[in-house]
Amino acid sequence: MNMISSERIVYVDGHYGPESQGKVSIFDRGYLFADAIYEVTCIIGGKLVDFDGHMVRLVRSLKELDMPMPMSPQELLAIHRKLIADNNVDEGLIYMQISRGNADRDFNFPSKDTRPVIVMFTQARPVLESPLAKRGLKVITLPDIRWGRRDIKTVQLLYPSMAKNAAYEAGADDAWLVQDGFVTEASSANAYIVTVDGRIVTRGLSSDILHGITRAAVIGFAQEAGYVLKERPFTVAEALEAKEAFITSATSFVMSVLSVDGQMIGDGKIGPVSSRLREIYIDKAVGARI
Amino acid sequence: MNMISSERIVYVDGHYGPESQGKVSIFDRGYLFADAIYEVTCIIGGKLVDFDGHMVRLVRSLKELDMPMPMSPQELLAIHRKLIADNNVDEGLIYMQISRGNADRDFNFPSKDTRPVIVMFTQARPVLESPLAKRGLKVITLPDIRWGRRDIKTVQLLYPSMAKNAAYEAGADDAWLVQDGFVTEASSANAYIVTVDGRIVTRGLSSDILHGITRAAVIGFAQEAGYVLKERPFTVAEALEAKEAFITSATSFVMSVLSVDGQMIGDGKIGPVSSRLREIYIDKAVGARI
Repeated sequence: MNMISSERIVYVDGHYGPESQGKVSIFDRGYLFADAIYEVTCIIGGKLVDFDGHMVRLVRSLKELDMPMPMSPQELLAIHRKLIADNNVDEGLIYMQISRGNADRDFNFPSKDTRPVIVMFTQARPVLESPLAKRGLKVITLPDIRWGRRDIKTVQLLYPSMAKNAAYEAGADDAWLVQDGFVTEASSANAYIVTVDGRIVTRGLSSDILHGITRAAVIGFAQEAGYVLKERPFTVAEALEAKEAFITSATSFVMSVLSVDGQMIGDGKIGPVSSRLREIYIDKAVGARI
Repeated sequence: MNMISSERIVYVDGHYGPESQGKVSIFDRGYLFADAIYEVTCIIGGKLVDFDGHMVRLVRSLKELDMPMPMSPQELLAIHRKLIADNNVDEGLIYMQISRGNADRDFNFPSKDTRPVIVMFTQARPVLESPLAKRGLKVITLPDIRWGRRDIKTVQLLYPSMAKNAAYEAGADDAWLVQDGFVTEASSANAYIVTVDGRIVTRGLSSDILHGITRAAVIGFAQEAGYVLKERPFTVAEALEAKEAFITSATSFVMSVLSVDGQMIGDGKIGPVSSRLREIYIDKAVGARI
């Protein structure tokens, strides 16, 4: 986290350079059509958390959009590691975006041999000792009006961005998105409640939500630890009556939700289940970082 | 259309230069979040068709996303005109994208004083004598799974791009998108049918469809010419039973649809209503270009 240079080194389409020089073509389809996918991987102690999980999802996203894998996971890992080293990042994240590549603007996909463009950059920030993890989140609810393939991790992020911004303007930290009365997920995290009888409830996988890498890990760890976990949709009313609520994401790990739409969840404090799951995740997933 | 140089001159954030040098920051929010809007204006005889209409929609799109108008319509017009002249474009289009600007990646909007980034480039192509206008279109139908604010002209165009591509792969020219059994619009154009009793039917304005500039003009011209026009949703079944079908867009003007999902519409030829509306549009809107 202690950078000597005032500029980060970023990776753009095969080249490393200072962030002020990090540029893509105006004909990059990520820029013109949001025709690009991304992954965000957490860095702890200069190492990557669940990199393999992110690679599995990356391959799936590319496949769903009929885009080729531009290089092997090993080569992508090498770029991740070089950026972490060049920027001396101890804790934070690394962002990777892969677009379909450069082509004159046309709704039709360009020819199959168009070369995908890879961009990566780091962000240093506290993760283990995140202020928000210590305090817990206030969330508001908003209608989920995103497109129908939220399972593909595309850069079509305008609505999540608008939702997050609306939450901040309302004095909250994030928004939970609601469709047909049921919570889908947070603006960029999966959503969970703990019912009064101690069951963890989170929406099952479908095209309605992102297939969280941290979600998969936390669900596995929770079951190993003996928690009863049910994958099903839950309503806002159920969330308001819950004993606890929390979110998971690659850079949040597990964070408690203290209130929804201004109404306290449980006793309005960080709950024992989310607290324990955060400990377990840090122990196991962070412990296994590469 | 006769360019001496092999490269177009493009406009990027205050600067004119060759297209190979046309680059935006990897921190442009248009690139990272699809947090950008755009307009496409048609060029005929080196002049702009319905520029004022596009400016009205641009202002609306920016307002809906809480983005400032980066410069006056007159200044934007001057850039349009310079690009047309520099590239010697007789017929084609000019693309303009305005993003919220550059900021380190964060779902929250950056500070209000972030400077929007404007990009513009031209594409020379036949419009008046478009081969597709002469032949007529084959369309397929696909589910409309776009986000819920299609009235804002954002660059979240991945699904329209996928739909157009799927249409091409199916041997068609475009896709009509269908929601709850009703046609919303084409991948990047508004959709119309002419019923057996001669009424023109097109979906009314709402957040379900783009508020087409050409749509507004054509509706006005159709009514002036004595056609009965009804703004209401229509089903795929109604389209299949229609006498004619057509689309409108800034660069298509009016184009006949000859078949839907492989089934011939009317007699499968370019119809008299769409044909007449194309003539009127060219006469009036193209006649009034600036």
